Amino acid sequence: MKSLPSPFILINSAMSADGKLSTKERKQVKISGKADFDRVDALRASSDAIMVGIGTMLSDNPSLTVKSEKRRKERTLAGKDENPVRIVADSQAKTPVDADIFKKGSGKKIIVVSKTAPSEKVNALLKNPDTKVIVADPVGSGRVDLTEMAKLLKKEGIEKLMVEGGATLNEGLLAAGLVDEINIFIGNMIIGGKNAPTFADGSGFSENNLLKLELISFEKIEDGILLKWKVKND
Amino acid sequence: MKSLPSPFILINSAMSADGKLSTKERKQVKISGKADFDRVDALRASSDAIMVGIGTMLSDNPSLTVKSEKRRKERTLAGKDENPVRIVADSQAKTPVDADIFKKGSGKKIIVVSKTAPSEKVNALLKNPDTKVIVADPVGSGRVDLTEMAKLLKKEGIEKLMVEGGATLNEGLLAAGLVDEINIFIGNMIIGGKNAPTFADGSGFSENNLLKLELISFEKIEDGILLKWKVKND
Ligand SMILES: NC(=O)c1ccc[n+]([C@@H]2O[C@H](COP(=O)([O-])OP(=O)(O)OC[C@H]3O[C@@H](n4cnc5c(N)ncnc54)[C@H](OP(=O)(O)O)[C@@H]3O)[C@@H](O)[C@H]2O)c1
Ligand SMILES: NC(=O)c1ccc[n+]([C@@H]2O[C@H](COP(=O)([O-])OP(=O)(O)OC[C@H]3O[C@@H](n4cnc5c(N)ncnc54)[C@H](OP(=O)(O)O)[C@@H]3O)[C@@H](O)[C@H]2O)c1
Repeated sequence: MKSLPSPFILINSAMSADGKLSTKERKQVKISGKADFDRVDALRASSDAIMVGIGTMLSDNPSLTVKSEKRRKERTLAGKDENPVRIVADSQAKTPVDADIFKKGSGKKIIVVSKTAPSEKVNALLKNPDTKVIVADPVGSGRVDLTEMAKLLKKEGIEKLMVEGGATLNEGLLAAGLVDEINIFIGNMIIGGKNAPTFADGSGFSENNLLKLELISFEKIEDGILLKWKVKND
Repeated sequence: MKSLPSPFILINSAMSADGKLSTKERKQVKISGKADFDRVDALRASSDAIMVGIGTMLSDNPSLTVKSEKRRKERTLAGKDENPVRIVADSQAKTPVDADIFKKGSGKKIIVVSKTAPSEKVNALLKNPDTKVIVADPVGSGRVDLTEMAKLLKKEGIEKLMVEGGATLNEGLLAAGLVDEINIFIGNMIIGGKNAPTFADGSGFSENNLLKLELISFEKIEDGILLKWKVKND
């Protein structure tokens, strides 16, 4: 059973046919096309919040906004912010104060940190409008505790959380038993490389304790294929 | 264009939903079920040869035989050996002299080595019946040259070569532009781990030079999905 309380958590990623999220230089690459991009935009618009790990923040500086004006309008008509809450899992508050999440699009931002995050960095981040810093580190480990984080985000009113990587955060959430669903678009290329980030890096599962999934659906989209998996947390 | 002369080369692997071939301990895990196992057996029976890298030989000691008696009989009726030629890419001739490929099933074995393979190891391997050692190392690099190997295997009469991993050999063949088709069965589990072998390890492709594929077909098999890709070597 999934540990509760927690939002419903869905991880969405695009990976190459060999399981990579980007090249060994951690350079973002175009894995999917327009149709999948639009699907992801709709998924964002339907979520209460979107999260990335600090690795992705630093390598890609994503804005995490809803791109379709129509979808943004539908959100505001429904009484919501134009964009879902944008969240970074970032133990040491390394998110740049001028990151695109602060500059592009309106809506709330949450940086989730540990107890050892330097206070000058936390204070600098808090100067950005609509920005909250949440400490999720009950035992002072110096690392964000993802189960505690899920609990606190639920308290913030987040019922549906979409996670957009990267490799390490995906694995952390999966290992903590917090993920309900996984959507993976598999693109028509091989990236290769022992050191390229994969869908789930971290320390990984062991032989007798693999994380089991159930295939919900599969669908060809442009030149690749979209797999939706339900995670069996038990 | 694929470099010629070469057999038609097809890589078949089973990987987890996150692109792993086994756990970080390099422990073989059950990724597919009976139906896919049977598909792989048919693919073996239809091939002239089956190859693995020395990494897979040492970690899994696979026999690489055709399991179905009916298929073995069909092969002999067609004037072939019961089993396809079993090949190991093994620069330093580290294949154990008592490996299962020598003990299980009849048929030819080829160990492909480099010029620096120790002669006492080569001689010990040659004591096994129906066993050949081929040197594929034109410049004396101490590593098997896969393009040269493909040329020599074609000379041996091998028209269709099935490769069954692992991670490093797959990538080497892909990077050399030698692979025509890839079959990947994606199983219903997450293995995870930064150091777990993926479908293609090695040094990998760079951002502007990803290896492009074309989806031939996709099919749900038991709890996973089989993707067939054509490799666009140009
Ligand atoms: N293709 C796609 O769909 C896609 C999507 C996203 C990213 N990517 C790629 O993925 C790569 C980045 O992946 P990454 O693995 O380096 O970074 P990441 O997963 O984005 O971030 C990992 C970081 O999150 C922080 N974190 C905080 N608490 C954690 C916890 N309990 N468990 C795990 N992580 C925790 C850790 O840093 P601290 O301890 O310092 O906080 C950790 O190093 C980039 O190359 C990017 O382009 C691709
Ligand atoms: N799920 C599956 O379908 C599946 C299938 C097979 C294997 N596996 C797993 O994969 C893992 C083994 O993978 P691996 O990467 O360690 O080993 P591998 O790919 O089986 O073998 C790699 C070795 O092949 C030799 N080789 C010779 N010439 C080469 C060349 N030009 N390019 C690349 N390799 C060359 C190299 O050793 P030398 O230089 O010493 O010759 C290299 O280290 C195991 O955990 C196994 O269980 C899974």
